[in-house]
Amino acid sequence: MDQMFNLLLQDVYYAEKALLRALNKMAKQATDEKLQKAFTDHRQETEGQVERLEQVFEMFDKKPRAKKCDAILGIIAEGDEVMEKAEDENVLDAGLIAAAQAAEHYEISRYGTLAAWAAQLGNAQAARLLNETLEEEKKADALLSEIAESAVNRQARAA
Amino acid sequence: MDQMFNLLLQDVYYAEKALLRALNKMAKQATDEKLQKAFTDHRQETEGQVERLEQVFEMFDKKPRAKKCDAILGIIAEGDEVMEKAEDENVLDAGLIAAAQAAEHYEISRYGTLAAWAAQLGNAQAARLLNETLEEEKKADALLSEIAESAVNRQARAA
Repeated sequence: MDQMFNLLLQDVYYAEKALLRALNKMAKQATDEKLQKAFTDHRQETEGQVERLEQVFEMFDKKPRAKKCDAILGIIAEGDEVMEKAEDENVLDAGLIAAAQAAEHYEISRYGTLAAWAAQLGNAQAARLLNETLEEEKKADALLSEIAESAVNRQARAA
Repeated sequence: MDQMFNLLLQDVYYAEKALLRALNKMAKQATDEKLQKAFTDHRQETEGQVERLEQVFEMFDKKPRAKKCDAILGIIAEGDEVMEKAEDENVLDAGLIAAAQAAEHYEISRYGTLAAWAAQLGNAQAARLLNETLEEEKKADALLSEIAESAVNRQARAA
């Protein structure tokens, strides 16, 4: 169990670092101001999440190491495709939100598993840290849904 | 928007078909009876979800087509790695649950986006079908969490 926990930690560590770079790019490309701010804020939050992961590695006497995560690379590649192909601003923002929510849900599943496993391995402190990040990811996902809805309503009023 | 909706539909269509094969394998490998049943039941449910996607393609006058989805392939590859490397039954089942929950969350994010976009495109009937699947995916995820917890409690009692 120890070994599998460590592998999953390495997977998420890789994913968070890849997302740091992706969120930078997405914040620059987004056209809606609220969405830009959401990406910039979440980028900053992600830095804290990377630090928490490093603390969890330490709590289990492991060196922080990143293991390539194909799932997050696939999700990020989709975001890149949206940025290349979107025919207008609304479609661009909607596509960026979709890609970001796929990333959030990937992380929600991973942190849910990691928090449960940390508790199972008897490390309540690590479980608490992982649950803190889990709550942040859920909030980030909910905020993106809100932004998507308010953008749609704005477009409907303008039409 | 139409075009992006269709691309995302093709992505999820690919993902569901890949999961049909993966769930078969996972049901065979799982050792916990409840988990086996959950995988077998969800495989059957997934067949219905594939049919719903085909109906949605039709509602938008599109041919059902699958577009390779690297995210789901990454998640499925992780499940395969678990099956190869797990050192005992409990670790195997826990790893399979983790991989399946990553897949569920991928789908939850995709169906959430698709349902919102279908509504935005004025197709309430398609939105309803997509929301039905969304609710099934959420339930499947919750059931996996329950099975994980009850397995941990059983192990704790046996220890």
